[in-house]
Amino acid sequence: MTNTLVVEKAKTSKIQDVDFDNLSFGSVYSDHMLVCDYRNGKWEAPKVVPYQPLSLDPSAKIFHYGQSIFEGMKAYKDEAGDAWLFRPLENFKRLNKSAKRLAIPELPEEYFMEGLTTLLQLDKDWIPQNPGSSLYIRPFMFASGTGFHASPADEYKFIICTAPSGAYFSGKVKVLIEENYSRAANGGVGYAKAGGNYAGQFYPTQLAIEKGYNQVIWTDDNSHEYIEEAGAMNVFVRINDTLITGPTSDRILDGITRKSILDIANEEGIATEVRKISVHEVVEAAKTGELKEMFGAGTAAVISPISAFGYKDTDYDLPELQNSYASLLKKRITDIQYNRVADTFGWRYKV
Amino acid sequence: MTNTLVVEKAKTSKIQDVDFDNLSFGSVYSDHMLVCDYRNGKWEAPKVVPYQPLSLDPSAKIFHYGQSIFEGMKAYKDEAGDAWLFRPLENFKRLNKSAKRLAIPELPEEYFMEGLTTLLQLDKDWIPQNPGSSLYIRPFMFASGTGFHASPADEYKFIICTAPSGAYFSGKVKVLIEENYSRAANGGVGYAKAGGNYAGQFYPTQLAIEKGYNQVIWTDDNSHEYIEEAGAMNVFVRINDTLITGPTSDRILDGITRKSILDIANEEGIATEVRKISVHEVVEAAKTGELKEMFGAGTAAVISPISAFGYKDTDYDLPELQNSYASLLKKRITDIQYNRVADTFGWRYKV
Repeated sequence: MTNTLVVEKAKTSKIQDVDFDNLSFGSVYSDHMLVCDYRNGKWEAPKVVPYQPLSLDPSAKIFHYGQSIFEGMKAYKDEAGDAWLFRPLENFKRLNKSAKRLAIPELPEEYFMEGLTTLLQLDKDWIPQNPGSSLYIRPFMFASGTGFHASPADEYKFIICTAPSGAYFSGKVKVLIEENYSRAANGGVGYAKAGGNYAGQFYPTQLAIEKGYNQVIWTDDNSHEYIEEAGAMNVFVRINDTLITGPTSDRILDGITRKSILDIANEEGIATEVRKISVHEVVEAAKTGELKEMFGAGTAAVISPISAFGYKDTDYDLPELQNSYASLLKKRITDIQYNRVADTFGWRYKV
Repeated sequence: MTNTLVVEKAKTSKIQDVDFDNLSFGSVYSDHMLVCDYRNGKWEAPKVVPYQPLSLDPSAKIFHYGQSIFEGMKAYKDEAGDAWLFRPLENFKRLNKSAKRLAIPELPEEYFMEGLTTLLQLDKDWIPQNPGSSLYIRPFMFASGTGFHASPADEYKFIICTAPSGAYFSGKVKVLIEENYSRAANGGVGYAKAGGNYAGQFYPTQLAIEKGYNQVIWTDDNSHEYIEEAGAMNVFVRINDTLITGPTSDRILDGITRKSILDIANEEGIATEVRKISVHEVVEAAKTGELKEMFGAGTAAVISPISAFGYKDTDYDLPELQNSYASLLKKRITDIQYNRVADTFGWRYKV
């Protein structure tokens, strides 16, 4: 217990303005937010305050040197109205892993967990109960300290905002396997949820969107021969009856949905392989019909089936399966998240 | 002419609080700043306003997805009290090159140039006249539009702040040639002045500082066999009497000081080579004594001589030369910048 967590309640709620039946993704924000400042060499006690603008000096290093990291989580409401998180400690650990790589001071666990649960209890009414909806939770940290010297800041902010949200993608996703641009370097920050990893993907993704795709599948920056991840999602490939995903590395995010899917698949008796996947292998399997499914997995996107992929100016359609691994695994993981089945893995966390 | 540039003067000046004889780098800010907003699909007219905090929604994409770029420039005051810029259009062009790669809308040239000169004329007294000092100019652009969807923002801010500054490095610089971490990927954003490129360097640089070095010299992320750049500077190596620097690429910044140095060296009759430099070659040349000099070149650091480099747990000292290329080239470029000699290249720009 931090003991000192201060709560300042909003005078009025904005909740009556929200159309919970037509939620987009991450564009409406709940009444409160958690704010925690790092100053004089330590994280100060977190505060829950009304959602409000941030005031920052123009020389704050966030504007110049990209010292920013984030996490993505969701709160789910069950039929009884109870609220649940999914493996929140995994997000906390990854936040600090990202912090270390970006030279941001690590946060104490109790500041994260107590701050998060206090915030969610206060804004519990903001957790949607509609099917497919949830409260998207965005913890983030950035350099608020000032100066144009290219070195780590001396002050940081850790904030958690929440946003009642619908689906990230509407419908199936068509992807382009990238041959020129790259997401991450060996020895770089690709495994961290660093802001800069995302900005660098926007332009190549725009080019792919102009060609009729929804997302890019990134390949290694050296040979472009191996599939890495889809930027906002890890990628799974089903060849015949085996489910394959690439190993995590310093270029690939250690996705919480990714590893949960692997555990569920193993429990379901689905053969899984964690190994490098070459583009050549996927193209050949598409040609012979052995490529049964591809899907993305991530907190925001949950499991997003891929309907087709493009590579070297050719599109390869994926078959429409009756009982896909994607739909089975999505049902299994969301059943756990929304407290519809027993949680044999111990992943659920009651708010 | 933008015609519509609005100037709101500060009611009082902070200039009397500044000790111009003891300036650090980029930590004191002038009275005014330029602000320009991108909204509804276009850049609005720039405004010069008193230096002041920025108010941003916590969901502004700068905090989450690293959409930020910047430039570094300096204004120099000559003995007559006239103010000069150095190749400002090169900074403008590179800003838009960075903007394109980060999916940020490009800025019209007149907004940049007129905004910059109006700002500098207003804050002319802030340009230091002390030797080695200048007014550091920081143009930057970032995503102010909101939303947790990982896609480009719909609103941006372009801002120019200025800071009277002394030297970036005090004294000679000892560097570590990096063998594990990397700065940039092939097909990535290394050539852009993207905020995220800098944050990713802080942790490996901290590790190097703990070992007694000042800066890291980055190598390619694939083999770590070739020298790339020093993060805040391009790198030059003198082997015997030839001055060598790496070619620009999608991983290496097209430095304005770098290309100016090459032009000056050519005019001085110094043999130059622009080609890949292997670490092996530099180590061997250090062992035989053929490695005469190494230095970094950049707007902030000007020309920073390297006194020693570390590689695989061995330090290699550089000799102390009487008439080094570094000191010759630094004198030549600063003489042009401070209007002490004729500018045969046409690089100076009167404010």
